[in-house]
Amino acid sequence: MGRNLFNLKELSITEIEAILDQATVFLNAKNHKKFAGKIACNLFFEPSTRTQYGFQVAEMNLDIKAIGFNPEASSLKKEESFYDTIKTFDAFGADLLVIRHPSNGYYEQLAGKIETPIINAGDGTGDHPTQSLLDLLTIRQEFGSFNGLSVVMVGDIAHSRVVHTNFEAMKRLGMQVYTSGPEECRQNELNFIPLTQALSRCDVVIMLRIQHERHGKRLCMATDEYNSKYGLNHENVSLMKPNAIIMHPAPINRNVEIIDELVECGRSRIFKQVKNGVFIRMAAVKYALEAD
Amino acid sequence: MGRNLFNLKELSITEIEAILDQATVFLNAKNHKKFAGKIACNLFFEPSTRTQYGFQVAEMNLDIKAIGFNPEASSLKKEESFYDTIKTFDAFGADLLVIRHPSNGYYEQLAGKIETPIINAGDGTGDHPTQSLLDLLTIRQEFGSFNGLSVVMVGDIAHSRVVHTNFEAMKRLGMQVYTSGPEECRQNELNFIPLTQALSRCDVVIMLRIQHERHGKRLCMATDEYNSKYGLNHENVSLMKPNAIIMHPAPINRNVEIIDELVECGRSRIFKQVKNGVFIRMAAVKYALEAD
Amino acid sequence: MGRNLFNLKELSITEIEAILDQATVFLNAKNHKKFAGKIACNLFFEPSTRTQYGFQVAEMNLDIKAIGFNPEASSLKKEESFYDTIKTFDAFGADLLVIRHPSNGYYEQLAGKIETPIINAGDGTGDHPTQSLLDLLTIRQEFGSFNGLSVVMVGDIAHSRVVHTNFEAMKRLGMQVYTSGPEECRQNELNFIPLTQALSRCDVVIMLRIQHERHGKRLCMATDEYNSKYGLNHENVSLMKPNAIIMHPAPINRNVEIIDELVECGRSRIFKQVKNGVFIRMAAVKYALEAD
Repeated sequence: MGRNLFNLKELSITEIEAILDQATVFLNAKNHKKFAGKIACNLFFEPSTRTQYGFQVAEMNLDIKAIGFNPEASSLKKEESFYDTIKTFDAFGADLLVIRHPSNGYYEQLAGKIETPIINAGDGTGDHPTQSLLDLLTIRQEFGSFNGLSVVMVGDIAHSRVVHTNFEAMKRLGMQVYTSGPEECRQNELNFIPLTQALSRCDVVIMLRIQHERHGKRLCMATDEYNSKYGLNHENVSLMKPNAIIMHPAPINRNVEIIDELVECGRSRIFKQVKNGVFIRMAAVKYALEAD
Repeated sequence: MGRNLFNLKELSITEIEAILDQATVFLNAKNHKKFAGKIACNLFFEPSTRTQYGFQVAEMNLDIKAIGFNPEASSLKKEESFYDTIKTFDAFGADLLVIRHPSNGYYEQLAGKIETPIINAGDGTGDHPTQSLLDLLTIRQEFGSFNGLSVVMVGDIAHSRVVHTNFEAMKRLGMQVYTSGPEECRQNELNFIPLTQALSRCDVVIMLRIQHERHGKRLCMATDEYNSKYGLNHENVSLMKPNAIIMHPAPINRNVEIIDELVECGRSRIFKQVKNGVFIRMAAVKYALEAD
Repeated sequence: MGRNLFNLKELSITEIEAILDQATVFLNAKNHKKFAGKIACNLFFEPSTRTQYGFQVAEMNLDIKAIGFNPEASSLKKEESFYDTIKTFDAFGADLLVIRHPSNGYYEQLAGKIETPIINAGDGTGDHPTQSLLDLLTIRQEFGSFNGLSVVMVGDIAHSRVVHTNFEAMKRLGMQVYTSGPEECRQNELNFIPLTQALSRCDVVIMLRIQHERHGKRLCMATDEYNSKYGLNHENVSLMKPNAIIMHPAPINRNVEIIDELVECGRSRIFKQVKNGVFIRMAAVKYALEAD
């Protein structure tokens, strides 16, 4: 009955645009009672605010009952495996599983074993499809379409699942995609560009947090040194094109990748992304529940 | 559309009495479907049982969907700020935020920045308006009105947000308000009185827990020494006026501020306060959602 | 109005069979709106996945609003007692309390003090009535009735509340009940039998996890030594009768009490037990709410 949403590379451009269209419908009228009586289990094996609670709000807007999961108070404490935990929720007969887990491609071991549709809410440094979709919605709201736009993602490229999902999808959508940031976090195949050059060229600048929790060691650099070299600040923001926008998947380390005053400046769409996330997640839930 | 409830000093006597009246209406018929489809986010940055789950029950009685928040599994673990966390929930488009936080006046930094109405569920040693309102409801149920009544709050005066909210509101309502307790916890401007004198004079005796978590160091005193000097026990309870009642915001340290046998004695309204708390919180939610 | 469900020894055979019958009705049509507007509080003072979230799904299937409880973010952190915590939830006026607690017979201190009906979701090494009921449902689905069947429970007999509840109920239902496992975990009054003998004789083989969290010290034995002596493996599984089934209350330590390949083999009913658990818990909730 349902279908999985693991990443965007398995979706066609048409399917991606259909999800954005559905999110726009929800944005204009968020309450939608069609899924009343359904149950979604939100299984987050890593900390999360936007994605975890954004899914919960999205589900509630669809009149779906939402179950949260606290790994710390679960049988994981009695050494139960991830696989057995998911099999258990599958056996409950819930209608949807939303899963975040630190292992890249965790969902591969579940293929063919789990009947309940799964939405991937982030797998390690692999994919984060709903974050990418909300980024795309935010860009489409701003510029009307994707073709010919330039975007740069700046910061911890190697550890960002958002970068990996965005890079592939944005290229397919006809965008020119660049990455920038510290040497230690660079992935050469992802079209590296120096920051100043990127800022003067791109329509969309996506700043990223340094993901200390995924680094073996912390970047050896003071906060203000990081900001002046790789972050957005009063000087380099002036290089941006007149209509260019600033985005960030958040959480933000204010004054590191972006100075405090720019987080809510006129160019910033950072909290608009959060708002869009609710409607994208409603559309993703509808996508997963209504396979035909 | 909605309005904030940060403290009681910004409410008139008429507004306070209106909330008590509304709580009484709910007490007589708790189910109220008017808010069906609304979403409340309960954001507790400090441990809580009564307030946190009492709000959740209150919201559910009003047919509001309740989201709990676990700071330990949130992006606070990735160094996201309190402000950005609240801005995120605001961007979700929920209908109500209920917030407890250890910083006094945490809501001041949110003023003008957050559209969603906020109910303060406790700020540091500042205010705790719904606790104060449920104390007032319990007193009004007992004595019919406030004017001319005497009340003493006994214990950790300096660290109690309940004391600070109650003192101001009770005085405005025409009550004679005293405080008592150990020297280390005294605030001289709050009308100090020795305990034995207070017990023989007051209609309402509100015992308080020593808030070890807010003290730099623990009070250097054995439990039974504390009880005999500053707590309620078999000897001094006999000093109370015939119709005087015992209250406590809880959690209780049994045999410290009050001996075990008195917690559920005939004079005690301690669990009645908890029950009243649900109806007060329903009225507070209605107040916040229905500003006109 | 309601009634407690503390253990099975207080229920007649007729009452037990009636709960199994009701669960079967729910299994065929899980949605049941009769309890709309009711509130259940799930108070787990120990980690749990199946029982905790299975109850939540069961309640939601019955259109009951479910409140989860996080002891780590509650006033237990301010030294509030278990008793006062439960009294607080009772005072909230919720319709049902589901409680798991590490103390055997925790519910005895609540008798006569709590008005809200309580379902015991596990007390220390005492009882676990809904696990036992779901085991019984799984067996009845397989064999049609209980009389004359043989069952063995294998593993950590002394620390298993499931064993204690099952042993008494299964004997009353006319089953031959055995236990097996390591010397250190044996309870002689529970009809001990060597494993190989049990496997060739029994219709139902219930494997148990070593409950390290309830042992003072860990069993001094390597995983594969444990499996070859007391666990199910390729060699000894061939001793089982043709129609005999494997069960496990889970969580499973794969390759300890049962080798990985057998967990989802043709004889295994382990995930069917989880599925049955939802319907048993729906029936248990109905039992508790509908006393007449």
